[in-house]
Amino acid sequence: TFSTEATGEKRSLSSDAIINLDHGDPTMLETYWRKMGDKCTVVISGYQSLSYFANTKNICWFLEPQLEEEVKRLHRVVGNAAVDDYYMVVGTGSTQLLQAALFALSPPDGSEPVSVVSAAPYYSCYPEVTDFLRSGLYKWAGDANAFDKDGPYIEFVTSPNNPDGTIREAIVKGYGGGKLVHDLAYYWPQYTPITSCAHHDIMLFTFSKCTGHAGSRIGWALVKEKEVARRMIKFMEVSTIGVSKESQIRAAKILGVISDSCLPVPPPDSINFFKFSQNLMVQRWDELREVVGHSEIFSLPEYPQDYCLFTGKFTETHPAFAWLKCNKDIEDLGKFLKGHKVLARSGRRFGSDPKYVRVSMVSKEEEFKLFLERLLAIQAPTNGNLK
Amino acid sequence: TFSTEATGEKRSLSSDAIINLDHGDPTMLETYWRKMGDKCTVVISGYQSLSYFANTKNICWFLEPQLEEEVKRLHRVVGNAAVDDYYMVVGTGSTQLLQAALFALSPPDGSEPVSVVSAAPYYSCYPEVTDFLRSGLYKWAGDANAFDKDGPYIEFVTSPNNPDGTIREAIVKGYGGGKLVHDLAYYWPQYTPITSCAHHDIMLFTFSKCTGHAGSRIGWALVKEKEVARRMIKFMEVSTIGVSKESQIRAAKILGVISDSCLPVPPPDSINFFKFSQNLMVQRWDELREVVGHSEIFSLPEYPQDYCLFTGKFTETHPAFAWLKCNKDIEDLGKFLKGHKVLARSGRRFGSDPKYVRVSMVSKEEEFKLFLERLLAIQAPTNGNLK
Repeated sequence: TFSTEATGEKRSLSSDAIINLDHGDPTMLETYWRKMGDKCTVVISGYQSLSYFANTKNICWFLEPQLEEEVKRLHRVVGNAAVDDYYMVVGTGSTQLLQAALFALSPPDGSEPVSVVSAAPYYSCYPEVTDFLRSGLYKWAGDANAFDKDGPYIEFVTSPNNPDGTIREAIVKGYGGGKLVHDLAYYWPQYTPITSCAHHDIMLFTFSKCTGHAGSRIGWALVKEKEVARRMIKFMEVSTIGVSKESQIRAAKILGVISDSCLPVPPPDSINFFKFSQNLMVQRWDELREVVGHSEIFSLPEYPQDYCLFTGKFTETHPAFAWLKCNKDIEDLGKFLKGHKVLARSGRRFGSDPKYVRVSMVSKEEEFKLFLERLLAIQAPTNGNLK
Repeated sequence: TFSTEATGEKRSLSSDAIINLDHGDPTMLETYWRKMGDKCTVVISGYQSLSYFANTKNICWFLEPQLEEEVKRLHRVVGNAAVDDYYMVVGTGSTQLLQAALFALSPPDGSEPVSVVSAAPYYSCYPEVTDFLRSGLYKWAGDANAFDKDGPYIEFVTSPNNPDGTIREAIVKGYGGGKLVHDLAYYWPQYTPITSCAHHDIMLFTFSKCTGHAGSRIGWALVKEKEVARRMIKFMEVSTIGVSKESQIRAAKILGVISDSCLPVPPPDSINFFKFSQNLMVQRWDELREVVGHSEIFSLPEYPQDYCLFTGKFTETHPAFAWLKCNKDIEDLGKFLKGHKVLARSGRRFGSDPKYVRVSMVSKEEEFKLFLERLLAIQAPTNGNLK
């Protein structure tokens, strides 16, 4: 075993281990959180948070007041989303809030389920989350580009998009009363320039993609209309009677540490979170582009530069996923990479072509390095796998 | 303000405050957890539990190994449920696991939704949880006593029952392939004698009713068949991508403290959890029965004595809820009590008569005392409210 220079992590994977980059498991930032030492440590006593209720004065009665405060503070610091005059709903990850939004936006007396769409390539969970219970309230209707039904619909707008990192706006030109859900999981400075303060009707964020704490299962929705917020809260009530208080307390603490790290005079030993994580993303993308540029087998999307209001610099998008395309005669890139012990999610899952895969860019350093090594090996001229 | 003798809690409610005993918010045991001091304190660092995964070797990949260990240990200590050869699935409270069980037990290729039943009075959440998304997989079919359809069905068997505390077995004599889900949330020694080690196909438990930590949203299922467990895990994956790691870590610690407190030689300053909580339940039920016995207006169910394998004594059930019946000309007891500033859940919600209400017996001491005072006042001969 040896240490990788960048992170000080121990190598624990053997050189022929299977590298799982199918999920976007955001373990990349462990190094950052280790550097922060005790700043983020939470201590919870046995007698705390017994009750279902966190704040009976809030319509979101299971929302911890300090979480609401720190979420709103961070959005003000970053400038990525409006929070004034918004209702905040906390969820068990943003996945649960997606479902809460579908529930809230479905016409309760509809004779048939409302159509749910998103422009392909769309996040692979949308069809599954929409259809897994065969709800009579809503139904997956596929690629928003191809949607031409009259009547009500719900469109997921994901920006930056998962899987391909593009900046997006609503697609459907609906005249029948479409509702939008903006999934802004990746609208943070480490991934993309912050070009405006978003102020959509429903905006979803998740702790896991902001800070890397996927295990906490914390997401939040900022909701303009009280009645919609109330229906989403109702969903949360019936589905899980609220959200873990421990996770909320910890998320509040960690988000607070991030906001503090961005202060003009940050606390001692604090490292600006977004600078650190953006640098890591830039570095990884540079490395990946260098490897991919070595041959004509693979290609990656290009992203335009834009002015980031948060950093005050021109930057480009460095998505949490690489949307890797194969330019050779390989029909199924996911299958091909699996043969090389790299698990990535097939383009098919995103309503797209299996010549594409989505590869996590936010894994541990060690996995990322092995991934690069394997891509290089595949591309080597002596490698017989590709004719 | 003054201290109530029993608990040392400060009085904070005014004498005309609304007492909310509609929910079973289990805050009663705060005194116990305060007495336990630092024993249950958990400390979580910023770099812990970043990943979605807790244990990739377990089919329940988001289950923290120490939680599984402590859950199984506690069941062995108490003897209330078999754990060997069972798969454990963790959920965001047992409410989410109810839905996971419905998902897992529904025929995936069924042309119509499977019927879901439970004997009235049944837990008020069952119909709501079953029907709120108008699933095509399952559908609430009401009182199990009245169910006579052929074909597949799912029966919830709740024992001790919520709301009325009775010990139950499956009701439907189905020949079409019925599936049972045993909701054993209250099958703990503080509520009822442990008469046998349960070993049903699917058994649901919840941290909130065992220890009083409702805010953590932790439940678990013990599942006999691997394929059923796998489908439940799939539900958890799609619905919330797992369960809060922080809550799991804390639940593991607290369940461990409970098991330790039951050791023949417990740790210093430890108080046997089940003795303590059972004493509290007995005391509250004695007080309530004394108050109710003062008049003929109200009545309560009677429970038989049984030998408890855990305590080695004959005890009776002391449910977490009182199933209070009004014997006078009051059509809607819930409405009547609301007029006296006591919120309780109407019998109607449980598929029963509105002459009944369900009243939480696990509230804070102060609320319980005020509830008793109000019941006494209602029953006073000079009170004009009841003719």
